[in-house]
Amino acid sequence: MAKEPVIRKEQGYTVADMGPLDLLHEYTITSSAGETFSGKVWLKNRIGLTGTEISYGALPPGAKVPFAHRHHQNEELYIFLSGEGEMRLDDSSVAVKEGTIVKVDPPVWRGMRNTGTVPLVHLVIQAKAGSLEQSNQHDSEYRPLG
Amino acid sequence: MAKEPVIRKEQGYTVADMGPLDLLHEYTITSSAGETFSGKVWLKNRIGLTGTEISYGALPPGAKVPFAHRHHQNEELYIFLSGEGEMRLDDSSVAVKEGTIVKVDPPVWRGMRNTGTVPLVHLVIQAKAGSLEQSNQHDSEYRPLG
Repeated sequence: MAKEPVIRKEQGYTVADMGPLDLLHEYTITSSAGETFSGKVWLKNRIGLTGTEISYGALPPGAKVPFAHRHHQNEELYIFLSGEGEMRLDDSSVAVKEGTIVKVDPPVWRGMRNTGTVPLVHLVIQAKAGSLEQSNQHDSEYRPLG
Repeated sequence: MAKEPVIRKEQGYTVADMGPLDLLHEYTITSSAGETFSGKVWLKNRIGLTGTEISYGALPPGAKVPFAHRHHQNEELYIFLSGEGEMRLDDSSVAVKEGTIVKVDPPVWRGMRNTGTVPLVHLVIQAKAGSLEQSNQHDSEYRPLG
């Protein structure tokens, strides 16, 4: 049986336990063509996100995402946590590692490969471009700790 | 001078180098009251996000966020990368560590403290609740690798 995060839904919030980041490769996804890939977990449907789709990825050494893609509406943010790799962005290449963030506008063709010897661990965050109306103090109310 | 990520804006994408996650404490923010806090970096204005506000946090051992807050429009997602802590969610407490994700609906009062001996490293993602209209294959176009 495929590995699943442990999820607890409460009134107003949801808690998920994904397990250690160095075991992300135990998660698998199956493509519409029936191929299985390890090290990818999608969160939106699992925890009920309504403003983003977020995934964890752990691309194995030597592997690449097997296609390039671009978006119609959504801005994507790639946040790299460990490992070494390369993103292809239209006709350019960008080296990525722990601490690299790449924000990609919808129409740019993108791909990724692991150029190192350990998994390339990263998060990918999709949100509708232009959808954030306000944030931080403009969207918040504060109170002292009780 | 305060530490700043190294940022490169290109046509259609932006690359930021935040540096190693275990040096996040070198980033500082200053409150409107003039107090300085270490280990927090906001990304939206730095890299031009339009669908999310995202921050990195490295809450020091023994520290807590000095107030509780809630949101008007925005769903928040807390992604914990290392360390140990506790989130307060209205009248409940949730233990958090590497691999814990907490999705919080706008009206829930939230706070956080570090209960461990190393920094509590995490990401916080804000997006307008209900703003994601489509994602993944419903928002994407694919092509073979060139």
